[in-house]
Amino acid sequence: MVTTGDDARSKILRATLQLVGTHGVPEVTNRRIAACAGVSLGSITYHFPTQADLLRAALVSFVDDETARLRELAEQYRSQALSLAEAADLTERIAHDLAFTAERIAPFELYVQAGRDPDLRPASDRCWRAYDALTVAVLIALGVQAPEAIAPTLVATVAGMQLRRLSTGAQTDVAAAVLTLLRGAAGTG
Amino acid sequence: MVTTGDDARSKILRATLQLVGTHGVPEVTNRRIAACAGVSLGSITYHFPTQADLLRAALVSFVDDETARLRELAEQYRSQALSLAEAADLTERIAHDLAFTAERIAPFELYVQAGRDPDLRPASDRCWRAYDALTVAVLIALGVQAPEAIAPTLVATVAGMQLRRLSTGAQTDVAAAVLTLLRGAAGTG
Repeated sequence: MVTTGDDARSKILRATLQLVGTHGVPEVTNRRIAACAGVSLGSITYHFPTQADLLRAALVSFVDDETARLRELAEQYRSQALSLAEAADLTERIAHDLAFTAERIAPFELYVQAGRDPDLRPASDRCWRAYDALTVAVLIALGVQAPEAIAPTLVATVAGMQLRRLSTGAQTDVAAAVLTLLRGAAGTG
Repeated sequence: MVTTGDDARSKILRATLQLVGTHGVPEVTNRRIAACAGVSLGSITYHFPTQADLLRAALVSFVDDETARLRELAEQYRSQALSLAEAADLTERIAHDLAFTAERIAPFELYVQAGRDPDLRPASDRCWRAYDALTVAVLIALGVQAPEAIAPTLVATVAGMQLRRLSTGAQTDVAAAVLTLLRGAAGTG
């Protein structure tokens, strides 16, 4: 993965994502990145001539890591039989993981940036599809019929609830919502 | 509504929202706002001493307008009997309206900013609750039992699908997803 490397480029990308998460895109300056990554200002402009290049590369590297992480999670659930309660619990854990660290604001930053910058849309699309694939794996483990049809709806619901949680500071009951949706999809409610 | 006024303050807020939507928070400078609003630089700093003040006021004014708009829509549906197809169609129209103008990126900018700035969370919360209230009005018109229980899930699903649409440029079938959810909630599927 790009962001586990120890070279200057990886350090810069990691620092950029960290700063995007904690301070937001407007506050990300080369000076801050240099301080956070422990590299020189020259090293940043050598690797990334413009700030747009840097931001794009950082968000793409986030997607690379995220899709690898989600693929691993999906593999774990591919050959298991899950109960609805276990699936809701798993989703709650993924949702929690997504929301509460600085770096985890990154997907939402990515999505909003991609709304303006068409060059970011393929990376954004890959990210959503990785969530779809994880959801399909969980739905298969649950024995849900035609999981591909319901997966994008479930992913949208979790993303929306995460965004509400992030933006209000209030808890949202992701597990309960997912359970309702899964019961509806499974026809077991 | 704040952003329909013709005074300098309203013009500045309107221009800020417009620029946030088209260029994003990082690109919003006082110089650009002055050009877009047709006011002097001094007028901006007179009304808003810091950029944080300005951004906060712009996003709060957006929420004021949005909640007023949603309240009107909710009123229209309060005394009607709707079919599921009409409800899905209505949701699709609201969703479409939300996604495809520059200003309509504003709610997502607001939510992400509120993730970092606790002062913005009450405005963000008001915005989500206005969507809940509209959804409850639609669900009541549909004769759905206990609409308050399902409304936040529906709102999250539509927000998530909108975000995916915005960030990938691809169409997402919001109407079909809402129909599935409404059928599940209404027990008519």
